[in-house]
Amino acid sequence: MSTTLEVALGERSYPIHIGGGLLDDAALFAPHVRGRTAAIVTNPTVARLYRERLSATLARAGARVLAIELPDGEAFKNWETLDRVYEALLRAQADRRTVLVALGGGVVGDMAGFAAATYQRGVAHLQVPTTLLAQVDSSVGGKTAINHALGKNMVGAFHQPAAVVADTGTLATLPPRELAAGLAEVLKYGAIHDAAFLDWVDRHAQALRARDPAALSHAIRRSCEIKAEIVARDEREAGIRALLNFGHTFGHAIESAAGYGAWLHGEAVAAGMALAARFSAAQGRLPRADAERLVAIIARLGLPVDPPEIAPAVWLEYMGRDKKNEAGRVTLVLLDALGRGAIVKDAPPRALEDFLAAA
Amino acid sequence: MSTTLEVALGERSYPIHIGGGLLDDAALFAPHVRGRTAAIVTNPTVARLYRERLSATLARAGARVLAIELPDGEAFKNWETLDRVYEALLRAQADRRTVLVALGGGVVGDMAGFAAATYQRGVAHLQVPTTLLAQVDSSVGGKTAINHALGKNMVGAFHQPAAVVADTGTLATLPPRELAAGLAEVLKYGAIHDAAFLDWVDRHAQALRARDPAALSHAIRRSCEIKAEIVARDEREAGIRALLNFGHTFGHAIESAAGYGAWLHGEAVAAGMALAARFSAAQGRLPRADAERLVAIIARLGLPVDPPEIAPAVWLEYMGRDKKNEAGRVTLVLLDALGRGAIVKDAPPRALEDFLAAA
Repeated sequence: MSTTLEVALGERSYPIHIGGGLLDDAALFAPHVRGRTAAIVTNPTVARLYRERLSATLARAGARVLAIELPDGEAFKNWETLDRVYEALLRAQADRRTVLVALGGGVVGDMAGFAAATYQRGVAHLQVPTTLLAQVDSSVGGKTAINHALGKNMVGAFHQPAAVVADTGTLATLPPRELAAGLAEVLKYGAIHDAAFLDWVDRHAQALRARDPAALSHAIRRSCEIKAEIVARDEREAGIRALLNFGHTFGHAIESAAGYGAWLHGEAVAAGMALAARFSAAQGRLPRADAERLVAIIARLGLPVDPPEIAPAVWLEYMGRDKKNEAGRVTLVLLDALGRGAIVKDAPPRALEDFLAAA
Repeated sequence: MSTTLEVALGERSYPIHIGGGLLDDAALFAPHVRGRTAAIVTNPTVARLYRERLSATLARAGARVLAIELPDGEAFKNWETLDRVYEALLRAQADRRTVLVALGGGVVGDMAGFAAATYQRGVAHLQVPTTLLAQVDSSVGGKTAINHALGKNMVGAFHQPAAVVADTGTLATLPPRELAAGLAEVLKYGAIHDAAFLDWVDRHAQALRARDPAALSHAIRRSCEIKAEIVARDEREAGIRALLNFGHTFGHAIESAAGYGAWLHGEAVAAGMALAARFSAAQGRLPRADAERLVAIIARLGLPVDPPEIAPAVWLEYMGRDKKNEAGRVTLVLLDALGRGAIVKDAPPRALEDFLAAA
């Protein structure tokens, strides 16, 4: 059984297919790859599990199939790794009709997407997410990037995929820590946009951690619906799309300060959401009890709620580099209620500094 | 006196301002930079001549001005140099409202444009070309790129500038070799699209080399008109825009084989146009006398008509990496007449190899 949603972006619209066993569905891939070179971009862990299956499907769909393996992890989401993709494509004389196929989690999706945005000034790509985080968040919406030594995701492009194919069967092989990291982003959608979905996640926390297929399917579908709706309204993050960054300003600082890869992205976002909720309460925007309820759900999902030890000056330096900022002021996503996020461009810097010193 | 043309691309439309002294015209820059960070990207040679003037103008227009100097030349059009731009922007906490200002020739324009396309997933940029080649060609049309060790301009993006400001006064300081290189692209427009303009270039070859202001102004305006028209019809080179690559498939191979920087881009294009014209004649598309007339004009403009010594296998390897190619076949721009280019996807490989062996 599978579902298809749409990201409505005019001539850049595309489908999100969600269901078990889609990795074997040649008919789904054929319109995108028939008669073309399809270059699977993946990492060794995912390659061992799914590369042959996807290669066979793409070949049945009529593609000439290449595979490009990148080292695993956020620490390798940089130019040196990206250059391996370009080099492999050039050595194979891959032309502008080539389709890159991102098979893996957020790191693979970001890098394959950015490679597609820039190889020969832009080729098509498909997102085939195999982690929960990628299925509910990073594979949808066209954000692609690599990290810079001075900040996360600072070099990238908006480049929408031609389709997203989320095979929920791949979640069976996901390590528990990665599953929990994905649940952080699921919870995020409830926190910023949908109080009823937040309640649902709260009630189904154990079912989700136990990988109950029905619970996971619902979580993925509802997350993708919310993301697709927000992206369709604001593709390039001129406004409302910034809400999707709830927990991410603190989270990116945690990832950068701890060294890329020490914290999973979803873990850093979880601790970041706890901080953002508590700062919302400290600012008198959100009842303290609601902030603590969100923190409790984060903990129940098996995720960290406390940041690592970071000096306030280091917090502010990393937060000062966030892409949402304007004119040197830190922009934060805070909560006005559970289910209602707010983009705040004038958070008082002294209050933020005092809050971080005490965090 | 100045002229303004428009590149008509819907919401991505932008003006091309052409005239003497525009570097001092704060009113022209103000709508694009007021209240923003304007980061001038340039090289040491151009910086010495024009950086202070442009900085003062941008400051009068209301910008916070940064300057980023990159090493000079095609050999540095690579990731390492690009990373200097990102690093300088991040260190200055330049936000998404930042405007990059490319002050220089084609290399600076390509790199600043690609940095703008990718810094924080895309910021605005202005092209302020100071070479003839950049004024008539590379600053217009939104092609940005860096080179890869395995091929020229293989990593890049289509990213239109917010405006092009071509101060013809800067041509007074251009070395003669660079001036001639720009004339190669001027001649190209006549060869592919406008027989009357080709005749005009032929008649004014000496005036152009002598930098007669009226002749240069006309050459720049007519070149930009033709380029703007073709780009408006085919922004992403799905079809007709490939005509602008006349001489470039051979030319890129010459640049790559000789080592980036040994030949100026315009010089390689000049020899490439001579080859393309002669191959057009060898293929029976173009009267041999017309091919030789074009070769004679190229020589009259002070440009090379013969390629360096390159083995046929090396030619074909580099030409095989051209971005216009599809499914492993070399696409060439040939001439059906002087003033009429043709995109040829099925040039017989054996004939091409024999031609190159004899070249």
